[in-house]
Amino acid sequence: MDIERRLAVLDLNARYAEAIDEDRLEEWPDFFAADGRYRITTAENFEQGLPLSIVYATSRAMLRDRVKALREANIYEAQRYRHLLGPARIEHGADGTLHARTSFMVARIMHTGETTLFATGSYRDRIALDGDAACFAERVVILDSRQIDTLLAIPL
Amino acid sequence: MDIERRLAVLDLNARYAEAIDEDRLEEWPDFFAADGRYRITTAENFEQGLPLSIVYATSRAMLRDRVKALREANIYEAQRYRHLLGPARIEHGADGTLHARTSFMVARIMHTGETTLFATGSYRDRIALDGDAACFAERVVILDSRQIDTLLAIPL
Amino acid sequence: MDIERRLAVLDLNARYAEAIDEDRLEEWPDFFAADGRYRITTAENFEQGLPLSIVYATSRAMLRDRVKALREANIYEAQRYRHLLGPARIEHGADGTLHARTSFMVARIMHTGETTLFATGSYRDRIALDGDAACFAERVVILDSRQIDTLLAIPL
Repeated sequence: MDIERRLAVLDLNARYAEAIDEDRLEEWPDFFAADGRYRITTAENFEQGLPLSIVYATSRAMLRDRVKALREANIYEAQRYRHLLGPARIEHGADGTLHARTSFMVARIMHTGETTLFATGSYRDRIALDGDAACFAERVVILDSRQIDTLLAIPL
Repeated sequence: MDIERRLAVLDLNARYAEAIDEDRLEEWPDFFAADGRYRITTAENFEQGLPLSIVYATSRAMLRDRVKALREANIYEAQRYRHLLGPARIEHGADGTLHARTSFMVARIMHTGETTLFATGSYRDRIALDGDAACFAERVVILDSRQIDTLLAIPL
Repeated sequence: MDIERRLAVLDLNARYAEAIDEDRLEEWPDFFAADGRYRITTAENFEQGLPLSIVYATSRAMLRDRVKALREANIYEAQRYRHLLGPARIEHGADGTLHARTSFMVARIMHTGETTLFATGSYRDRIALDGDAACFAERVVILDSRQIDTLLAIPL
């Protein structure tokens, strides 16, 4: 795979995490295609092929609604996230998209300053490239833990 | 160093971590050369040049035995690992292999969902390249902490 | 941006973290330009544009003094750090330097072996390139948490 495509994927990953960690949630839906899919599930469900999801959205518009709800609920203000991503494994998919897998850890920093390792898991992505621009045709967030925090407010 | 070699090392690192984190332990020995060496030690021992090891294997066959023992002991089922790797520092070694150093953090996720920062440290690797294929001639796992969990069951 | 420049930045980042994590603090000032700036602040202050800093140094000489003080205070011996860096976002700055943003997590490992997630945040860097050599014209460490440990002894 040419290096430009690799860099486009790494850049997409880094900008995605940065937008969330800097609380620019309104930009978050723009990392997805108009009919992009976003799903959060657990490794247990994923490995058993179960369709259960904690979050499931099938369009950019649904993601916008979600951000709006978060802002109105106003929960997110009391906390910050810090995403740390490992190296991405990138392959050509049969459908013309790039397929990427990336491990992550997310720390949650409460307003008091208390920092905890909040979530670990991996992203399974299908990435559409259009010239220099890259976006997610699909991002599946697979959480290692099945103990889901009820405060899963901010996107992962 | 040419970019293809760099990418081969990054890919080896990522696939290694992925195999362990997805519990495909039977694939783990195949990341090593037939006479590959695998060692886990502590930073304290390593810096003092002490030969003490927590785990020491000198062939792929020994690693296979280790996996078999783990599967029989059946301890591993109750937990998952998540490896997160930093950027690798890669240099040409005098012996024709590539030398790489990579920092890591490993989270352990118990069956209950409880997630803890389990281990931190760095890999010191000698990597043999044969065409496009890369494998470990040697992987030394240097743990920052000397407080070794007695449940150090799954490979790091 | 050409790949050589990217690699020079990644290498600088990795060597910087390695020097600190391996307690080679005397090498730390050499990662900065002679008139390089180093600042630690919180995300809260940074986002509000406040000039408040936890640490602020405006030359390599000041950093050397800091290391000397740390060695004399002798606090650092009881602990280790482990930096884990995410992928760097790199752009050309208007001032001829490269601008980079990199997320980090730092674990602290006490002499007893106790390991905690000590700090999370991001680096905002201006990096000067001179041929193959890269150094920090400025490194701003933005901590996610405002709860600063009074033992913030080792550089971040």
